[in-house]
Amino acid sequence: MTAFKYFQENWTPVINKYLEKHLADDIDDQKISQIMSYSVMAGGKRLRPLLYLATLNTLGRKIDDAEIQIACGIELIHTYSLIHDDLPAMDNDDYRRGRLTSHKKWGEAEAILAGDALLPLGIEWISKASNSAEMVTIITKAIGPNGMVGGQYLDIDSTNNTSVANDSKYIDKMEWLKTGCLILASVQMGAVRANATDIEKVKLSDFAKVFGRAYQIYDDLVDVVETSQEAGKATHKDKEEGKNNTLTLLGIDQSRQELKALIKQAKDDLNGLDSDVLGGFLDLYKKVL
Amino acid sequence: MTAFKYFQENWTPVINKYLEKHLADDIDDQKISQIMSYSVMAGGKRLRPLLYLATLNTLGRKIDDAEIQIACGIELIHTYSLIHDDLPAMDNDDYRRGRLTSHKKWGEAEAILAGDALLPLGIEWISKASNSAEMVTIITKAIGPNGMVGGQYLDIDSTNNTSVANDSKYIDKMEWLKTGCLILASVQMGAVRANATDIEKVKLSDFAKVFGRAYQIYDDLVDVVETSQEAGKATHKDKEEGKNNTLTLLGIDQSRQELKALIKQAKDDLNGLDSDVLGGFLDLYKKVL
Repeated sequence: MTAFKYFQENWTPVINKYLEKHLADDIDDQKISQIMSYSVMAGGKRLRPLLYLATLNTLGRKIDDAEIQIACGIELIHTYSLIHDDLPAMDNDDYRRGRLTSHKKWGEAEAILAGDALLPLGIEWISKASNSAEMVTIITKAIGPNGMVGGQYLDIDSTNNTSVANDSKYIDKMEWLKTGCLILASVQMGAVRANATDIEKVKLSDFAKVFGRAYQIYDDLVDVVETSQEAGKATHKDKEEGKNNTLTLLGIDQSRQELKALIKQAKDDLNGLDSDVLGGFLDLYKKVL
Repeated sequence: MTAFKYFQENWTPVINKYLEKHLADDIDDQKISQIMSYSVMAGGKRLRPLLYLATLNTLGRKIDDAEIQIACGIELIHTYSLIHDDLPAMDNDDYRRGRLTSHKKWGEAEAILAGDALLPLGIEWISKASNSAEMVTIITKAIGPNGMVGGQYLDIDSTNNTSVANDSKYIDKMEWLKTGCLILASVQMGAVRANATDIEKVKLSDFAKVFGRAYQIYDDLVDVVETSQEAGKATHKDKEEGKNNTLTLLGIDQSRQELKALIKQAKDDLNGLDSDVLGGFLDLYKKVL
């Protein structure tokens, strides 16, 4: 078993247990707790919290309860973004992670509020466990108008907009903001938390930027390569809905070439660091190559 | 001119100028900046940022640029909550502060995203300017599932629910969470920022709790007492839409009595503090008495 696989199999259940317990115990209203849990516990890969923990591992910091709470805070924020992206006014998706999306299951107002509740709760967990305003600033910047939400805005603004279809700069920016910023923030928070040196911070940020860029191409490839049963959500949707992304711009073969090049670059960025676990995240992409 | 009036007329333009400048300068995408500004600059009373600043004034702390950024961060968060409350799936309001609501003006996806952008940006401003994880924890707790969003959930869950119409405990809790929590947090953040003593913290929290409770009754009275032109939004709506609140429970006369009693209590809570400015906020309620 690779170091990454071992790390993933060790910490994923810890993350899931923490999320399940604290969404049940810490939220006063049982119904809203249930609605939030429904989406959080739908079986995601926990990629972003694992990236945070793996960054600590690379830098030799012990993983304790506080680290798990911070990691889980990141996952709450990621889940909020999925719930809102799926809303009828946005991508209008009926399925996510193999089950009905939040608004299909509970109603639209409930889904909006579940997202609105997960976002500040995620930041609260990060703030309380870290006692670091610097980490709060990193995560809030990453998900605000110059980050994730800005990317989602570019996405809805460009859907069915043919003038954007061949604008690779626009598409690169949109994809970076939508997906890359939160991935980068997960690694950067780990670097701050583990008191990384300036050189380590640069290497880790470079890795995370390339990893995040690769992730978006991977995600787009999943949309065309996998059946909806494998992916747990509707696939082949992007083209039907007039979505513009790297894949619609480059086509499948060239997207795969681009992904391979990014994987190599990400490995190089980790040179000189203890990267057995963190570098192993790149194995994820193999299934679409 | 009262000390409160002077304070209000001095700082409101400073708040407005900061908001306008930084929503224009600090947000990369001009269109999303415009959509966010549209709602933030619609001419609110700036009650919560002023409460934060007045708490500093009570405790003798100088108001500088950092304090204005924190105050404005609170206003961004308040504006996010208004935009989402107005959405078709929620209260479905067409007008707010005398102009079209965000979703009527820009579209539903744009309004959801404007709220989703204002929330983390508001926290970022607070986090950066204060460098205090304690203040971030106060604000995120106040607006999460056990605070403001929890109250909004109870509200939509109880609309047109006759079993709740006479349940004063449920209504009190809902109104407290929806409105009171953010008001209390504004004062508590000021107390933390100005290094209040434990006794001062208790007095200020007691005042803010009563002020927040009074504010909700005041807001409900505005709905029945004012014409929509005066209020800048649809009035007489709560009853038509089957909303349950203290007013529908107690009636107008008894609500006014309750408001008067709360004003007296709030004044008493400030005994022993330099409360010329902070106590003056209670004058706001005179127009519905």
